[in-house]
Amino acid sequence: MTTEPGFIDLLRVIATDPAARGLDDDAAVLTIGKQALVLTKDMLVEGVHFLPDDPPADIAWKLVAVNASDLAAKGATPLACLTGHSLSRDAGWDAAFAGGLKAALDHHGLALIGGDTVSVPEGQARVLSLTAIGLPSVPVPPSRGGALAGDGLFVTGTIGDGWAGLGLLQAGKAEPASLVQAYRRPQARLADGPLLAQVAHAMMDVSDGLLIDAARMARASRLAVRIDLAQVPRSPDFAATIGSDQAAALAAATGGDDYQLLFAADAEAHLPVPATRIGGFHASDGDGGEGVTLSWNGMPVETPEKLGWLHG
Amino acid sequence: MTTEPGFIDLLRVIATDPAARGLDDDAAVLTIGKQALVLTKDMLVEGVHFLPDDPPADIAWKLVAVNASDLAAKGATPLACLTGHSLSRDAGWDAAFAGGLKAALDHHGLALIGGDTVSVPEGQARVLSLTAIGLPSVPVPPSRGGALAGDGLFVTGTIGDGWAGLGLLQAGKAEPASLVQAYRRPQARLADGPLLAQVAHAMMDVSDGLLIDAARMARASRLAVRIDLAQVPRSPDFAATIGSDQAAALAAATGGDDYQLLFAADAEAHLPVPATRIGGFHASDGDGGEGVTLSWNGMPVETPEKLGWLHG
Repeated sequence: MTTEPGFIDLLRVIATDPAARGLDDDAAVLTIGKQALVLTKDMLVEGVHFLPDDPPADIAWKLVAVNASDLAAKGATPLACLTGHSLSRDAGWDAAFAGGLKAALDHHGLALIGGDTVSVPEGQARVLSLTAIGLPSVPVPPSRGGALAGDGLFVTGTIGDGWAGLGLLQAGKAEPASLVQAYRRPQARLADGPLLAQVAHAMMDVSDGLLIDAARMARASRLAVRIDLAQVPRSPDFAATIGSDQAAALAAATGGDDYQLLFAADAEAHLPVPATRIGGFHASDGDGGEGVTLSWNGMPVETPEKLGWLHG
Repeated sequence: MTTEPGFIDLLRVIATDPAARGLDDDAAVLTIGKQALVLTKDMLVEGVHFLPDDPPADIAWKLVAVNASDLAAKGATPLACLTGHSLSRDAGWDAAFAGGLKAALDHHGLALIGGDTVSVPEGQARVLSLTAIGLPSVPVPPSRGGALAGDGLFVTGTIGDGWAGLGLLQAGKAEPASLVQAYRRPQARLADGPLLAQVAHAMMDVSDGLLIDAARMARASRLAVRIDLAQVPRSPDFAATIGSDQAAALAAATGGDDYQLLFAADAEAHLPVPATRIGGFHASDGDGGEGVTLSWNGMPVETPEKLGWLHG
């Protein structure tokens, strides 16, 4: 079978327009006349990106939030969107989804302007998609590839809560609620994105896992990155539930579903919003585990084989 | 279960932005500063919108063409697109699809700038989507709702070929090839759209069936429409395969998958491209089978219950 990276390689050959950014960014940046637009399209598949018994309003929230997070990662402000919806055989589900969609769109400032609704054969997983359009706040929205040697690597918020929340749900638990909420109702950093775009040399959102996403930023910037796992910010509820040792930090850093902003900036930059410095970029020597070197309070830690979630 | 019209009614409550055109048009028209954009998103589901054994390159063509047709129906010129792709478990299929996608995008002038690729659970129907962006050729792209009493109803090309082609394929036949091609490789009226937008009071593409789409235009324009089935243009291959009597004309007019442009214009307008006048608009008296009255060479014909394909 084709893997997602394999198919994206096929598409990359086609996507030669500069707006595509080599299909290597969170979003496209399309310039029409003097107007630049940021565009992204993320899909959610039942059983892959959400659990079949997740509340429909939460799934709608997540669909909107993950797309809004891509806009935030380019420093863009949400404007409008188009939906793609697989009708379920459950009218109550669809109505609850539509209600949740309205609340989520209102919260994120996205006007619904179009889309398509299809009926799929009986027994199929729901496939939901959204195309979101945003307005950039800076002339050239930060890509993943602009980090400079000597830059610090920073991340907003806390890491691992969404992953921990998924684990709780899979184990039939609903507490701590903050972790379950982090999984079901991720908070896109809409206010932070435009502010950070002023200082970030490179920026992306953390969706597949902090380490794999940092590795992608390093690779796109042709640099290597060092991360001290002890510096990865974790919430009190995460620590109480998963622990606060090195293994817990590594789990947080590879879990994914965070939707925090990861960015490269001058190590001593004055940041316009709170963020944690977790590491830094340096010239690549051509090895080092996909360009990521880990430590724990300064002591070397072996880079794990699995840096995040590849949606194989 | 929820029907597609039922779910769209739920979304309509949300889609209050003028750009959405009440979710009642082929595409959204979004104005950003002084720049207007036409945006559309159409999905294709295996077993619903294409046959599982259709060649992958033809499916890619159809995905692009049906979206480009929506742009053409608003008089817009294709600019860029984002794809949504369900990976199959067949690498050869995916590679053939990607190759066909490149050819189709090149033909339609659409730059691929982004999208998402997901893996779906084993045994699922493929769900493919495209969001296409176009540049309008007139300040206000024609909606479905601008027809005036006294206008003629016109259509480009011939009607029924795609429907006849689907029937041939379902019967295991591949000839006449022109009909099979019409089903698998619809030709969006890209050149005609911008020219017709100069004279059309209302315009849309014929996707679900000539009669149902004409009824939608009449309803959106708060008018009724008369159509003479004998005037509905049909190809020689259609006539040779399906016949040339009233039943054949009615089948053509309700079959769908035409992707011709249907438009309202002054009955005596000088048209910039060839099109056939098949009827006209008049004030609605509040009855008359969804606003459509049929004739055959001037003799009244009962309006059938099923005017087209509702994708129930």
